Amino acid sequence: MRESDLHNHLYTLTSDMSVRWPHVLTGPGDDCAVVAPPRGSLLVTVDQLIEGRHFDTGTPVNLIARKAIARSVSDIAAMGGNANAEAGGWALATGILPTGYPHARELTDALHHWAAHWGFPIVGGDIASGEEGGPLSLTVTIAGRPHPIRGPVLRSGARPGDEVWVTGRIGNSLASGRHLAFEPRLTTGAWLCRSLGERLHAMIDVSDGLGRDAARVARASGSRIELDGPLVPLHADVTHLHTAVGDGEDYELCLCVSPGAGLPARAPDGVELTRIGRVVAGSGCAIVIDGVASDASELGWDHQ
Amino acid sequence: MRESDLHNHLYTLTSDMSVRWPHVLTGPGDDCAVVAPPRGSLLVTVDQLIEGRHFDTGTPVNLIARKAIARSVSDIAAMGGNANAEAGGWALATGILPTGYPHARELTDALHHWAAHWGFPIVGGDIASGEEGGPLSLTVTIAGRPHPIRGPVLRSGARPGDEVWVTGRIGNSLASGRHLAFEPRLTTGAWLCRSLGERLHAMIDVSDGLGRDAARVARASGSRIELDGPLVPLHADVTHLHTAVGDGEDYELCLCVSPGAGLPARAPDGVELTRIGRVVAGSGCAIVIDGVASDASELGWDHQ
Repeated sequence: MRESDLHNHLYTLTSDMSVRWPHVLTGPGDDCAVVAPPRGSLLVTVDQLIEGRHFDTGTPVNLIARKAIARSVSDIAAMGGNANAEAGGWALATGILPTGYPHARELTDALHHWAAHWGFPIVGGDIASGEEGGPLSLTVTIAGRPHPIRGPVLRSGARPGDEVWVTGRIGNSLASGRHLAFEPRLTTGAWLCRSLGERLHAMIDVSDGLGRDAARVARASGSRIELDGPLVPLHADVTHLHTAVGDGEDYELCLCVSPGAGLPARAPDGVELTRIGRVVAGSGCAIVIDGVASDASELGWDHQ
Repeated sequence: MRESDLHNHLYTLTSDMSVRWPHVLTGPGDDCAVVAPPRGSLLVTVDQLIEGRHFDTGTPVNLIARKAIARSVSDIAAMGGNANAEAGGWALATGILPTGYPHARELTDALHHWAAHWGFPIVGGDIASGEEGGPLSLTVTIAGRPHPIRGPVLRSGARPGDEVWVTGRIGNSLASGRHLAFEPRLTTGAWLCRSLGERLHAMIDVSDGLGRDAARVARASGSRIELDGPLVPLHADVTHLHTAVGDGEDYELCLCVSPGAGLPARAPDGVELTRIGRVVAGSGCAIVIDGVASDASELGWDHQ
């Protein structure tokens, strides 16, 4: 498919955008998109998805598109925000497609489908042809807004004495294929904002490993996080706790809340909530098993 | 350089961001950036820059970064907008760096330098390592706002009878190296908005070739554009008009204005302004030489 044919397809696909999303004043096809920004502040995030790193060659196109969108949605969820129509959300998507890539149209349709699934339009983008044989790469920018009452939940608000909680279960996401089908915790994040308010001190989504991501919260907050190993909720197919804590790609929320905030075992949307540790004075992130603490901040992804 | 070392460098580089740019509420380092949106509407655009397509291997890192930023700035200019601090502008930048790429830090610094040069901060991003040997690719998203009085200048406002004008000169941008050093026409675009107001009907930046880009304006406006071949202002090193009209990468503005709008030969910023044609009823874009019209809408870039 020629680039101009794909542009024509996109033109058709997006011609009713301003009707479906009234905050989109000018959609794809001009030098810039024009959008009406939300009241208050804007959340913006960008993520890349690269063949061979974030998904295997041969992954169904629909799941590639889903993950490309879902990763950035998860970042919005980790702030307690949303990117749906009420939040004035929008996305920009770019791709480098291998020369002769046969699924350009299917991929484009799937990206628009998954954006609409989470409530926002793709208002612009760019497609380039890369080398023959790949790798395929996608870059997705999403804008949304924070929770209107709680405001953005940063990584930097944790305080010694806080409880550390996690949504869902951890580990083995890549090998099990769950990294292609995870549900960004938008609903849970918004419920946490609403029900905890200022008692919700800090939040992050677990993309690079629970240990590494908790260490980021600790660093941003000038504190230390200690995880109780036996409390970390693991998927049934996980064999080793330390591996699971370093696996990453879980896209669960890890949060720090005031002591005694009184979270239930499940959020109203059915997502499990588990207390897994505490914030203390110091730095870094440790995992404690039988009273022995080992460093968890270097477990997980760090590409040379 | 490890990804975490680069993140640490970025952290230092951007730690005073909210002081320098008060509209940045939370800069890089969290799941999302938090920015205060401008009043009115927001312009957003994204572009990719890929080694071997948009720049040659061996191009100085500083010029790669400059072009990556400048291409998206040119899209803002083509709407008559700006992305500087007054406009509440910001950018997101991502890169796929070849494994072992030795200039990661220099590239990061240069991206931030050129963003600041045009008045906005890079509030977030993502770095991934690609295959050994490349290609290097960068994706830059920029947000700004339209001209506060004229509003966004779309491609779709041209009407039969309009004059077609172009800024600067056209042609041979890639071979001459000008594609690495062009000046996005922010000042000229804003002056056109201010001085012409509603008489400025449509505008585009010339990235894929004057003929192809003028045809996009014609299509969006439901009209036809006829360019007078001998009037098209060419750089001194251009040998053939038709090649120049298809070369692309000029990043000049092509605009359609009310007949008799009375533009001078130069804008106040010194940029040349040349009347090169007219809008008529019909479709497509033709270039007319000695009374003979030939199709210009297929000259220039269209990658398979």
